[in-house]
Amino acid sequence: MLKADERIDQLYSQDIKIIQSPSVFSFSLDAVLLADFAVVKPRSRSVDLCAGNGAVSLFLSRKTAGPIAAVELQPRLADMAQRSVALNQLTDQITVHQLDLKDTFSQIAKDSVDVVTCNPPYFPPLATSKKNPNPYLAIARHEITTSLEAILKITSGLLKMNGKAFFVYRPDRFNEFITKAAAWRLQTKRVRFIHPKADREANMVLIELIKDGRPGGQRFLPPLTVYDQNNQYLPEVRRLLYGDN
Amino acid sequence: MLKADERIDQLYSQDIKIIQSPSVFSFSLDAVLLADFAVVKPRSRSVDLCAGNGAVSLFLSRKTAGPIAAVELQPRLADMAQRSVALNQLTDQITVHQLDLKDTFSQIAKDSVDVVTCNPPYFPPLATSKKNPNPYLAIARHEITTSLEAILKITSGLLKMNGKAFFVYRPDRFNEFITKAAAWRLQTKRVRFIHPKADREANMVLIELIKDGRPGGQRFLPPLTVYDQNNQYLPEVRRLLYGDN
Repeated sequence: MLKADERIDQLYSQDIKIIQSPSVFSFSLDAVLLADFAVVKPRSRSVDLCAGNGAVSLFLSRKTAGPIAAVELQPRLADMAQRSVALNQLTDQITVHQLDLKDTFSQIAKDSVDVVTCNPPYFPPLATSKKNPNPYLAIARHEITTSLEAILKITSGLLKMNGKAFFVYRPDRFNEFITKAAAWRLQTKRVRFIHPKADREANMVLIELIKDGRPGGQRFLPPLTVYDQNNQYLPEVRRLLYGDN
Repeated sequence: MLKADERIDQLYSQDIKIIQSPSVFSFSLDAVLLADFAVVKPRSRSVDLCAGNGAVSLFLSRKTAGPIAAVELQPRLADMAQRSVALNQLTDQITVHQLDLKDTFSQIAKDSVDVVTCNPPYFPPLATSKKNPNPYLAIARHEITTSLEAILKITSGLLKMNGKAFFVYRPDRFNEFITKAAAWRLQTKRVRFIHPKADREANMVLIELIKDGRPGGQRFLPPLTVYDQNNQYLPEVRRLLYGDN
């Protein structure tokens, strides 16, 4: 079942096994934080965009009994996601669509979804930054095959009125993100900044959007700090990764 | 020198005396935090808008030798500010203008200022919220005689190119703030959220804007937490209020 460069990693806190490949894509803390941040009801219909190897969908399955669709462009990653779904015996709940984002509506009806999650490419196209020599990682990280604009448009199209979207993004593009989201009828409701250490600037941000929500009323949650001064995970992160033990 | 309802408070950390009146207006932690957050050079020309009883201008005088103009609409507050300036022997450095914000350019030239600070009215006009029976406080807190839009327009007009503005504002209007600021050529550069306690949502936000700056590149500083779980000031706040001792 595993290919040569693959291994099985485990998210112990949720007893989920994930097929990973460092040469292609590995889930990291941002996927764990995004799934934790998402508010999902027992019967929510969820879609995870830019799904990668399916980590967020797999983690979400522990928070809802509703159907989850994972949309991923890259065949190699979609195949890994599909095999992880099988490995966790979640084929009844999670459907993997190997699909260009812009063709999402060919498989999932407009205005039909309660929850969208997305860990999108963070970086602009490669004009000024160095080209990543690994095409799998380049596509996952840079806006090569899609753009923030395109992702927000699809997100808005998928969601029912008052449906919610949960994103993890980069703080240095926060203003651009919320401005573009608002232009696609997605109002910022809840924000949580992630700081690597207590005395360092935020390097990630979790954002909750609501479709056709009223503007205003943003809430900024207590921030999450990842490491203590000795580079050990702080308790909240340890709990997310390893569970209560 | 003091009127019947007035008293002199002291900011011990900076040896500044401030004439206060609880029935009119008292400076509070937000003014201390704003003055601390502002980056002012030794010879900067500064303007404090919505100056109230002059607290921010007085605190700023400890960070620069450059001239500071305090603009306040309400005659009673401007008079208190003027007397506090005299009390601290700062009449050579701080000029108090009792002036409607919209007439600012009659006293201070356009494009002439390096730094603007502002602790504006936070609350929208009194449609849905209850009317404050104290007109001094109502004008200081609600957008009655001015609006966020008007303040940002004046701020932008005052600043030289690449001049900086520092605001304290409410998190629930953060998106509106940065969107309107950008429309007046003021790009968000640095943001710090203030949380009353470590496990509570932010109730204030400090924002640095730069005139004609490039969009993008926002930095979110480590947050400031005010109280510990026993309602005692945490060290950073204690230092700002009482100094190092």
